[in-house]
Order: sequence, then structure tokens, then C-alpha cells
Amino acid sequence: MHTNESEGADILAKAYAPGHITGFFQIHNHENPHRKGSTGCGIVLNGGVATEVMVGKSVEKTEVFLNGKKVEGRTTRTVAEMMTDVPVRIRGSAEIPTGCGFGASGAGALGTAYALNSALSLNQTAKSLTEYAHVAEVVNCSGLGDIAAQSSGGLVIRLQPGGPEFGLVDRIPAPEARVFCIVLGEISTGSVLEDEAAAARINSAGKTAMSELLKKPTLENFMQQAKAFASKTGLMSSRAKDVIEAASASGGLASQAMLGDTVFAIAPYSQEFLLYEALQEFGQVLEYSISTCVPKLMNG
Amino acid sequence: MHTNESEGADILAKAYAPGHITGFFQIHNHENPHRKGSTGCGIVLNGGVATEVMVGKSVEKTEVFLNGKKVEGRTTRTVAEMMTDVPVRIRGSAEIPTGCGFGASGAGALGTAYALNSALSLNQTAKSLTEYAHVAEVVNCSGLGDIAAQSSGGLVIRLQPGGPEFGLVDRIPAPEARVFCIVLGEISTGSVLEDEAAAARINSAGKTAMSELLKKPTLENFMQQAKAFASKTGLMSSRAKDVIEAASASGGLASQAMLGDTVFAIAPYSQEFLLYEALQEFGQVLEYSISTCVPKLMNG
Repeated sequence: MHTNESEGADILAKAYAPGHITGFFQIHNHENPHRKGSTGCGIVLNGGVATEVMVGKSVEKTEVFLNGKKVEGRTTRTVAEMMTDVPVRIRGSAEIPTGCGFGASGAGALGTAYALNSALSLNQTAKSLTEYAHVAEVVNCSGLGDIAAQSSGGLVIRLQPGGPEFGLVDRIPAPEARVFCIVLGEISTGSVLEDEAAAARINSAGKTAMSELLKKPTLENFMQQAKAFASKTGLMSSRAKDVIEAASASGGLASQAMLGDTVFAIAPYSQEFLLYEALQEFGQVLEYSISTCVPKLMNG
Repeated sequence: MHTNESEGADILAKAYAPGHITGFFQIHNHENPHRKGSTGCGIVLNGGVATEVMVGKSVEKTEVFLNGKKVEGRTTRTVAEMMTDVPVRIRGSAEIPTGCGFGASGAGALGTAYALNSALSLNQTAKSLTEYAHVAEVVNCSGLGDIAAQSSGGLVIRLQPGGPEFGLVDRIPAPEARVFCIVLGEISTGSVLEDEAAAARINSAGKTAMSELLKKPTLENFMQQAKAFASKTGLMSSRAKDVIEAASASGGLASQAMLGDTVFAIAPYSQEFLLYEALQEFGQVLEYSISTCVPKLMNG
């Protein structure tokens, strides 16, 4: 509902998209980026990225800033280049760590698409904006399935890969639950996806995990399948393994974010505090919850 | 994450689903209730219905309560009958008026499906639960398109009619905006849908509104198309017309909820208070916002 009609003035728009942690997945390569992607299952978080775009006379070239610092921001930049020829100043503000398996690049890409659509009155619907973000993710190898989940909300099962045109998602009826995270380090999504032997192990374990999940689509079973997947694929780091074992010993369920050196954990309501205490031994515990909400434009 | 393993004890589960106001629509009749429904556009609200189900030894027959009073609750009852043979005590608690175009029957049906799935460990996904709720709505003529919107969240465009199996939705990138409502009275959804002349006017005006909306999918254009639709179809009551004119005079955009004798209105952020003041002249102003969230299980 915000318009800026002063001729030549800069136009601002802001949008928010949630973060997302994948528990297990399968890689689906395809030469068409609209069809390329992943299947699997993950949690959309109530923490995400707010993205502000500015277009107008004072903006002379496209630049991307994240939390106040200038960054390359390839995925976000690709979205802007796909949507417009005019230069855009893009400022992201993240409530989630970047490069650690929280889907920050996807959240930034979605927020950029929503905000640019508003700033430039491009008259696109959510599906079209999501398609831009998905293509930008896969061509930059910054993610494969986050966009599909982030544009859906909840505990999302990605049944068919790709953007909204070809992709297909469902949801596990999402309960209210805290999601605790310990960030141990960064993993480059691109480097793992380009390793053929790793990809073969991922696809084999991912297929089993999906098949087992669909027999009993619950949060608990999702966490169990995610843990089995991380273990079987060899993606679980030794430090992550220690944290995951400590979480289990305190009555929680934990696994490693795919792809990031981050442990995420949940517990039955009565045991959430015990889990939190156990995780604290390993570092700062980030606390989120499962979000059932999709991206949106923001005021101001 | 809540389980009740004491043998024979009653099992409780609770779920929440949002309300929804349709601005314009087209009726799509079909003998298959999975394909029957409406296309159109509407707003998912941040007010909805919380539904608690109880199963176990102390529940001898299926009963439905709404806000503490025993009701027939046909749509909700149909959901329970489709999902289980065991008797269920269902208690709904509504933050939205019933019978006035807020999609309360749909919210109750969705909440019942989610809660029963949890209480009886039925291992259904969100799509399957949504399909139950959609079929229950259309066979009881309590609604045609609310479920498709309520299970998606946001400012939802219903492009193809039906439950998740056949239906197709998109979203207008939803801004944050207050939605003010004045309830003038009840309209029976069923009686309007069974009037052939009214249905013909609805489908003609609904087709035009959808075509115009897709040219410029924004909240403002949605409100304008909704107003044109309500006026052309003859569904706009004379009292609603007065309220809608007053809203326009105060800088807002307003129309009538389909199907209900309820006016809903929005305004640019800076004019929301003026709109609220103007609406207050006509009765109690209910205040919601556009919700981008989908149904969920609740704790406790």
C-alpha cells in the first residue's frame, strides 16, 4: 500500500522470506533450471532474511549488502538481473547465519524478487517470483530445494524437484515446536554437489529416507530419517556427531543441516529445556520455531 | 510432540486454521466433489478457528461444540465421519464470526482434520487432510473455495477449482495490511449457490474480475475487482453499499465478503485510522490482518 509518486525519487520496497533447514534430500540434475532441484524434507524457520531494494536516480549500479557489509551476493544479484535492467541497491538483514545450511541465499533471493516486483510494479504473482528465485539458486549452485520449501511454509516435503512450474510439495501437518541450532562451521553447498561419489551416496540415502518418511509423515520420523541420512552419506562431521549424541541423551532428536556444519534439534515440549541445556555445552544455541508462513512484503 | 500412552485414556489434539474472505468467485459444479469448487480471489486472515478433538472411552458419540455451545456442525462432522469410525468430541473456538463470510466452517473442518490426524495417528499429509476438508465443504454446500485458500495462506488466487488433487492456486505477493470488517448480518451460502439466475450472474462477473485481476495482481486491484463483482452480481446489500461508500470516502477500499453480509476494507497505512473511524459509525469494527500462514497443530 506504499507508493512513491514524486517524479525521479528513489523507490524503496522491502520483503521478508523465512529460513529453511533440509534434513535429507536427493539431487535431481536437469539442463532446464526450472526442472533442476532436489526432493527431500526440511523445516521452514520463523527466522529469515528481510531484504530492502532501492531503485532510482541515486542508484547507479547493482550492489548487494548483507547485514551492512558489501557482499558478492551472486544468487540475489542473479534475481535482480533476471527481473530488470535498472540498477538496484539491495540490502539484506539476516536473522539466520549464512553459509551454514539455513537457506539464507534462498531467503535473500525470494525477498529480492518480492521487493523488486513491488518497487518496479512488475505485476508478477508469487509463483512467478518464486520461479525467478529458484532458477537463481540452481544456476549459482547455492541451493537446490530451499526455495520450494520457503515459498510453501511448514514442515515441507519436496516430492518433485524444480520451481513452482514443475515442482511439487506437500507438508507434514506441522506442530508447534522449538528448533534449536548449534552452528559448528560452514560447508560449501556447491563443492558437495559437484562431488560425484558424494552425490551417489546422497541419492541412495535420500531415496530410502523419503520412502520411510512417507510411511509415517510426522516430525519425529522426519528427524529420525534426517539423522540416518546424515550418518549414511558421510556428511555428518565428527563434531556434529558429538552434538547429535548429546541431544539424543537429553531426550531430543537431532541431525545435521543439509548442507551446513550445523546441528538442529527438537524435543517433546516437556524436555525442551533439558535439550537446550545439553546443547549449550557446545556453543551458542540459536532458537527458532517451525514457521507455517510464506514470504511477504513488508511496510516501511 | 504430545503423546498419551496410558491405555484407554482419552486422547486430545488441537489444531488451528485461519479464516478467509472471498472477494469474487466463479462457481464450478462437478459431480466429483474433489473437482467441484470455485475459482476467484480472497484474503486469508490472521483470525481463525482453534479446534480440539477428544477420542477415547469417555467419548460415546460424535458431538460438535462451537464457542461452548452444542451445534450441528455439519461440515466438521462430515470430516470426522470421513476420517474415522470412532466417536469424537469436537470443540471449536472461533476468533471470527460464523455464517458471515469469514470461512469459519472451512477453518473448523481443516482444524478437525489436522487434530484428528494427530489424535488417531492416521499418518496423513497436509494435502490429504485438506482434501477431506474440501470435500466436506462442498458436499455440505457450506463453501466452495475457502479450503483451497486457507490451506495456502496469503492473498490467494484460486486458478483451478477443487481440493489439492485438482485445484491450483497462486498468490498475490501479500503486503502487510490491516483488514477491517463490519458484520451486518448472515447470508446462507447454500441458498445463493442454488439460485440459477444468481449463479449465472456470479460466473459472468467472476470471469471478468479474474481476467482484470491477473493483468495487475495487487491488493488494490483485488479490492477494486471485488467491489465491481459485488455490485454487478446484485449480491451487495443496500446497507453494505452505504458502508462501502463511506469507506471509499475516507480513502479506503472496501467490498462485501462473498458470501456474507459483511463489509471488509483496507486503506494505505497512513489512512488506516481514518478508515477505522469512518467504519465505526456503522457498528463494531473487527480488525484482522492478511495472514501468510497455513493451518498447524497446536500444543496443549
